[in-house]
Amino acid sequence: MSLKTPVVILNFKTYLESSGEKALDLANALESAGEESGITMVAVPQAIDIYRIKEETNIPVLSQHIDAVSPGGHTGSNLFESFVASGIDGTLLNHSECRMTLADIAEVVKKTKEAELISCVCTNNIETSVAAATFSPDYVAVEPPELIGTGIPVSKADPEVVKGSVSKVKAINKDVKVLCGAGISTGDDMAAAIELGAEGVLLASGIIKAESPKDALLDLVSKI
Amino acid sequence: MSLKTPVVILNFKTYLESSGEKALDLANALESAGEESGITMVAVPQAIDIYRIKEETNIPVLSQHIDAVSPGGHTGSNLFESFVASGIDGTLLNHSECRMTLADIAEVVKKTKEAELISCVCTNNIETSVAAATFSPDYVAVEPPELIGTGIPVSKADPEVVKGSVSKVKAINKDVKVLCGAGISTGDDMAAAIELGAEGVLLASGIIKAESPKDALLDLVSKI
Amino acid sequence: MSLKTPVVILNFKTYLESSGEKALDLANALESAGEESGITMVAVPQAIDIYRIKEETNIPVLSQHIDAVSPGGHTGSNLFESFVASGIDGTLLNHSECRMTLADIAEVVKKTKEAELISCVCTNNIETSVAAATFSPDYVAVEPPELIGTGIPVSKADPEVVKGSVSKVKAINKDVKVLCGAGISTGDDMAAAIELGAEGVLLASGIIKAESPKDALLDLVSKI
Amino acid sequence: MSLKTPVVILNFKTYLESSGEKALDLANALESAGEESGITMVAVPQAIDIYRIKEETNIPVLSQHIDAVSPGGHTGSNLFESFVASGIDGTLLNHSECRMTLADIAEVVKKTKEAELISCVCTNNIETSVAAATFSPDYVAVEPPELIGTGIPVSKADPEVVKGSVSKVKAINKDVKVLCGAGISTGDDMAAAIELGAEGVLLASGIIKAESPKDALLDLVSKI
Repeated sequence: MSLKTPVVILNFKTYLESSGEKALDLANALESAGEESGITMVAVPQAIDIYRIKEETNIPVLSQHIDAVSPGGHTGSNLFESFVASGIDGTLLNHSECRMTLADIAEVVKKTKEAELISCVCTNNIETSVAAATFSPDYVAVEPPELIGTGIPVSKADPEVVKGSVSKVKAINKDVKVLCGAGISTGDDMAAAIELGAEGVLLASGIIKAESPKDALLDLVSKI
Repeated sequence: MSLKTPVVILNFKTYLESSGEKALDLANALESAGEESGITMVAVPQAIDIYRIKEETNIPVLSQHIDAVSPGGHTGSNLFESFVASGIDGTLLNHSECRMTLADIAEVVKKTKEAELISCVCTNNIETSVAAATFSPDYVAVEPPELIGTGIPVSKADPEVVKGSVSKVKAINKDVKVLCGAGISTGDDMAAAIELGAEGVLLASGIIKAESPKDALLDLVSKI
Repeated sequence: MSLKTPVVILNFKTYLESSGEKALDLANALESAGEESGITMVAVPQAIDIYRIKEETNIPVLSQHIDAVSPGGHTGSNLFESFVASGIDGTLLNHSECRMTLADIAEVVKKTKEAELISCVCTNNIETSVAAATFSPDYVAVEPPELIGTGIPVSKADPEVVKGSVSKVKAINKDVKVLCGAGISTGDDMAAAIELGAEGVLLASGIIKAESPKDALLDLVSKI
Repeated sequence: MSLKTPVVILNFKTYLESSGEKALDLANALESAGEESGITMVAVPQAIDIYRIKEETNIPVLSQHIDAVSPGGHTGSNLFESFVASGIDGTLLNHSECRMTLADIAEVVKKTKEAELISCVCTNNIETSVAAATFSPDYVAVEPPELIGTGIPVSKADPEVVKGSVSKVKAINKDVKVLCGAGISTGDDMAAAIELGAEGVLLASGIIKAESPKDALLDLVSKI
């Protein structure tokens, strides 16, 4: 599956403002901002909220993580096949708050390809972006962990990590798109990211905690 | 919340036979067997299937696990509040396939009490059953890990672990009910468990993989 | 094995000031302060430094943690039997920086008893102290995690957690001794801890980073 | 640091036969077999046994794993700097029994380079071998997990994973050497591995549990 670039991917994480009934509100804000702006907007809710959001909205949905488990006895996990049954369009993998082993990233990226789902592998620097690119996921999203949740945008605080990831990832596989995250919340931040070669952004608290997430999303894409 | 004893708790784990659409079928089998037999039957589906099962059936639902996280940045987890919003009646904790730290068990049991949800802490022997009982959960479910998935019922292979857990757990707190699991699948197995003082059973593959789960459930409760 | 109370247990953690050659210096400071004060002082170095400290000093040594693994293929772990061969006198378990599952705590406490080694289970509040006490370790060391490394002593900031742990642990098993940790570094802090019923203290950075660890240790025990 | 190829790397894991006093015996067997055969033989003992083996033998020693932690509060870990102080020549990383996150592999490989130590990243298939090679470690050791400990040699059961890893790793960085492991124990197994392009082997139980490890090592290198 392919999404029109640039993309805006909103990681709902586990905030009260993005859980349960409010996860649905946030998904509706994304859908509405996407329609008004013409920019692809993607929701990344908690696993437990996915089914309902897919039932009641019409936007692309990624899961936040998928365990590398096969059918069997794995109490507490959700099966890859269960995510597919719930209607996901793809998944984030290896987020800094949910790091995966090298072997598990390889395995789940492979499963997403077989199921024709979108894969977005999160990384923390240029070196890990390059390694992730060898698996040919759809996206590599580079996020320096020290900037996550700070409001200091990576596209301004550390432009080299974005530029370097873009050039080195493309040298491995030109079809892998690079996103950037950490601290992104305004139109200027996103414009700077695109300028550096990113084909989209990965966001969270800056939008989730905004007074009006829809307005914040429209502002985010106002300068591209 | 209180369930009429004895209880039959079916852990769906992550089998293909208990995922997605088939999780719904299995929940319907539980509901139907519960109505016919008059015995309390509880579904424990994957988190991603909970919302749908609560929407479309009318049986008690526990989650398989809840992470001890507070609202915030915990990508890949599901928030306690999200489980509540999805309609769960309670949760298993510390299953042998999803062991938790002592501190996390204490924290999540406390949250379940505050939310008036059912808590069932899984343990592996008499010693850990006693330790878990000090948290005063609704249930302690003792399951020797070496018997899980074997078809060899704990109530016959290791009756002492059941009897010992019952007597020592009751000595800590007489309101904590003891369940037993591992290898339980027939009416004889469950009758033996009740005979030993257990107030219910925790099951999985023996029912999930039965040709007719409903028939297997009816057989299970046929001798009590 | 039994240590004369009160005890001072120094967790070396993984500071540069307590690693390699400097771990040996710190163990010598403990030995020397112990001899001068007559108070039992115990070193808790990194696993990799244990053999050398046992060879070159004459103080009780605990390991910081022991994995619950049996002989076999567990690359990256250290075997219980290897710790014994290195000469340890016992071990900390379940430190807040190295939490263990309920089942693993039970298993390793049991192994320490069989090997006649000292066990000290760390806990974070009264509830987990009580649960840990059901395993009958030699010590339960209660440390509210939010105070660790702050310099704010638990014996002053949260005296109730110490008093409550002492009374409730003794109600489970009067032979289990309660220590307290988190923020302890001065003579007043330790005196307050003993006053509350603790039979010793667990310390780390306050001593490790002192200009003279020996002087800091002598100050620590100056008011008891 | 560079080792003369081919290399024989013996992972001591956590067997009783390779722990404590017997770890020293095994290191002596390696040293003696290395001297007689002229082949580089490397010991990979448990962390707790490293200091003693470096004191009493004269062979290259790798650790089985190093955590990606910086100096500070990480009870239960061993600091990178402590491994260096104990005299290690390098480390295995990401063994199948001790998998690491992508970010942690990148970080520890970087530290080994700065400290001029040997790094050997274990992988499970061609895809992960390629990803690991992007970090430019000294060695990538490919071991299909399903063959580990079976006695069925990877060099015969799955020659393609060895050949493929060699050709694709060299395409990323020709200086990275490929080793293979899993099931290797005889002279024929090792000769087959070298034939496929491997520059050494990673072994464990086949040698550790041999009646005479030294004789088993001499047999291992007898056909190259």
